[in-house]
Amino acid sequence: MPYSYLSHLRCSKTGEIVDADQPQQLSPVGAPLLASYDLEALKQAWHPAALLGRPASLWRYHELLPVRDPAQVVTLGEGFTPLLPLPRLGKQVGIPDLWMKDESLTPTGSFKARGAAVGVSRARELGLTHFAMPTNGNAGAAWALYGARAGLRSTIVQPQAAPAITRLESALAGARLYLVDGLISDAGRQVAEAVAQQGLFDASTLKEPYRIEGKKTMGFEIAEQLGWTLPDVILYPTGGGVGLIGIYKALRELQELGWVQGPLPRLVAVQASGCAPIVQAWQQGERESRFWPDSQTLAFGINVPKALGDFLVLDALYRTEGCAIAVEDGAIQRELRQLASQEGCFVCPEGAAAFAAARQLREAGWIQGGERVVVLNTGAGIKYPDAITVVPQRLRRDGRIPA
Amino acid sequence: MPYSYLSHLRCSKTGEIVDADQPQQLSPVGAPLLASYDLEALKQAWHPAALLGRPASLWRYHELLPVRDPAQVVTLGEGFTPLLPLPRLGKQVGIPDLWMKDESLTPTGSFKARGAAVGVSRARELGLTHFAMPTNGNAGAAWALYGARAGLRSTIVQPQAAPAITRLESALAGARLYLVDGLISDAGRQVAEAVAQQGLFDASTLKEPYRIEGKKTMGFEIAEQLGWTLPDVILYPTGGGVGLIGIYKALRELQELGWVQGPLPRLVAVQASGCAPIVQAWQQGERESRFWPDSQTLAFGINVPKALGDFLVLDALYRTEGCAIAVEDGAIQRELRQLASQEGCFVCPEGAAAFAAARQLREAGWIQGGERVVVLNTGAGIKYPDAITVVPQRLRRDGRIPA
Repeated sequence: MPYSYLSHLRCSKTGEIVDADQPQQLSPVGAPLLASYDLEALKQAWHPAALLGRPASLWRYHELLPVRDPAQVVTLGEGFTPLLPLPRLGKQVGIPDLWMKDESLTPTGSFKARGAAVGVSRARELGLTHFAMPTNGNAGAAWALYGARAGLRSTIVQPQAAPAITRLESALAGARLYLVDGLISDAGRQVAEAVAQQGLFDASTLKEPYRIEGKKTMGFEIAEQLGWTLPDVILYPTGGGVGLIGIYKALRELQELGWVQGPLPRLVAVQASGCAPIVQAWQQGERESRFWPDSQTLAFGINVPKALGDFLVLDALYRTEGCAIAVEDGAIQRELRQLASQEGCFVCPEGAAAFAAARQLREAGWIQGGERVVVLNTGAGIKYPDAITVVPQRLRRDGRIPA
Repeated sequence: MPYSYLSHLRCSKTGEIVDADQPQQLSPVGAPLLASYDLEALKQAWHPAALLGRPASLWRYHELLPVRDPAQVVTLGEGFTPLLPLPRLGKQVGIPDLWMKDESLTPTGSFKARGAAVGVSRARELGLTHFAMPTNGNAGAAWALYGARAGLRSTIVQPQAAPAITRLESALAGARLYLVDGLISDAGRQVAEAVAQQGLFDASTLKEPYRIEGKKTMGFEIAEQLGWTLPDVILYPTGGGVGLIGIYKALRELQELGWVQGPLPRLVAVQASGCAPIVQAWQQGERESRFWPDSQTLAFGINVPKALGDFLVLDALYRTEGCAIAVEDGAIQRELRQLASQEGCFVCPEGAAAFAAARQLREAGWIQGGERVVVLNTGAGIKYPDAITVVPQRLRRDGRIPA
């Protein structure tokens, strides 16, 4: 059996087929390319039982990943993160069968490690040596660190307001790091210019085809961890949207393989009220979103005013009878506190946003009390020391703890 | 088969046997109590093949953990962290067979989650409702969060200089949190007083018997991940020393079960030059350490001037023909940079200290070039934003990335 069943790349707009064994960026019409696998062959050769005893990382699904040579795999042990039941919070919210897929347990502390592991591995396999990307922080940190492990050079541009720790990660990894006085959209423009002028590989969201392949493994894992059944609803904090598109892609692949049955989960794109272009588009029944001016939210990872893959996100929402919903920063902070005090989980603001959305959708009746709901916490709260403030009590060295 | 083969507790100084099914603190002579299991019965009933298909968490070893009722397990998915080969750094250091056991991939971002998961679970099983502990930050954060998940109350005292993020974790979890203008030894005195006066359960290092049982699983995992073989050397950053004692205990248990053969790895206790009581004791061939005055190091987790379990650490070093070594803060910072730029691993300062020690022991010839060496990285670098400084370049919104 080959290590990967990758067959070709396909334009997400026109369906045009493109060679997967050459470095590729966007399709000829400027749309993202998506990886296709020989699912017919794989259906005969591969069964869930084959996974028993494989490593507890995303590479357990290597047949459905794009790296052809196992020697090219660049890994820090990413994936197969916990899927945790949240009984106490679930009861409070009115969703007893509430689960959290916890991406805080990944190298670099966010789900971005998945995309970086697979994207960097495949980039190296294809002979690339220097990539560039704009980032809201976590993706750049992950790509810089995986790039270092792979021996690749990286150029990273991030807004100066991005989480401070991600600077340290990128710089220590040896990336050429720039902080821009602006948003990720500004950084994106600068990267595009450098790519054109300096001959770098553009690793921007969906401008290379393999980051999404790493992220889709969240979908495989949710299905495997639920014994190859699917939940009723999956909520995802949505900036660039690749996680959500990836999960949708994964679940479709599992359907085609016959590993899961029945309808797909209703997918929910969660955004912040201060940056909700996909919510706006969904509410208006549009196929694409419009640039969201003056965007702002404390959930920095989903401060993306216009996503290249917006049409893929919206398509996934429409096809699964999902929805898009925006939550206020105040609700994010309240939910972050709830997660910690009720369940011992210190989630990132983006994850807290998705829980706040679950609460609101339950209140609105869109989620039923008996449904199984999986919420993605996309990263570790410890990367966001400024998202919330606490005032501990102080003791002198010779002081006493009050009764 | 019972879920746990726990049989009794044993005084680490006198060997006196104590009931494991009542809440216990120190032994009658004031020494730590260690858990014993019915290894004879387990030897007949349990084999490595039984682990296949078990969850990728420390609970896969539940027969050798103290929780009797699986319903009492409090878990956030801790354990079975990656054991990563570090070929590039290994080559540079002169240890080609160099590995990192990466505890950054744990809930709360440090290995303290292991002790908290098992300690809190067992505390709840025994009917305890409120615990107190002094901490250098990470242990308190872990216990507070696991306590929240378990529905237990917690009182946490930490030096005000402890990593800032750990305050947030503890406070968000709902702990009664105090910052003391002093060291962990001051916090320990205050906790002891509160325990005596307020009837709390004392969860201080080694003053309750089960934290070490959680931490020992690092030893099980290293052996399992190396196919039930043992490395030649294991290096551990040593503050309270429970991780090292735990690994030693685990490997002895595996020996008794017959799951591993041959000599135990030489265990190395790594300390900082500014706080090296165990190194001093080892150099002088002592059985116990002396209080280290005015201790200071950027590796805050190992700033422990006098550990209750020092004699157990020293015993493990002597019995395995290991050693103790101190490293300078400057070497810690250099090694932290090396790990990130060579291998893409952003380790905590304590972990970096252990790598710096490996480098020095290789240079000194104490480690041979052909030996298999495992270094513990006890936590995530992202919890230590101030351990190291970088100065990224800045770009205006309309600026350009230089060629």
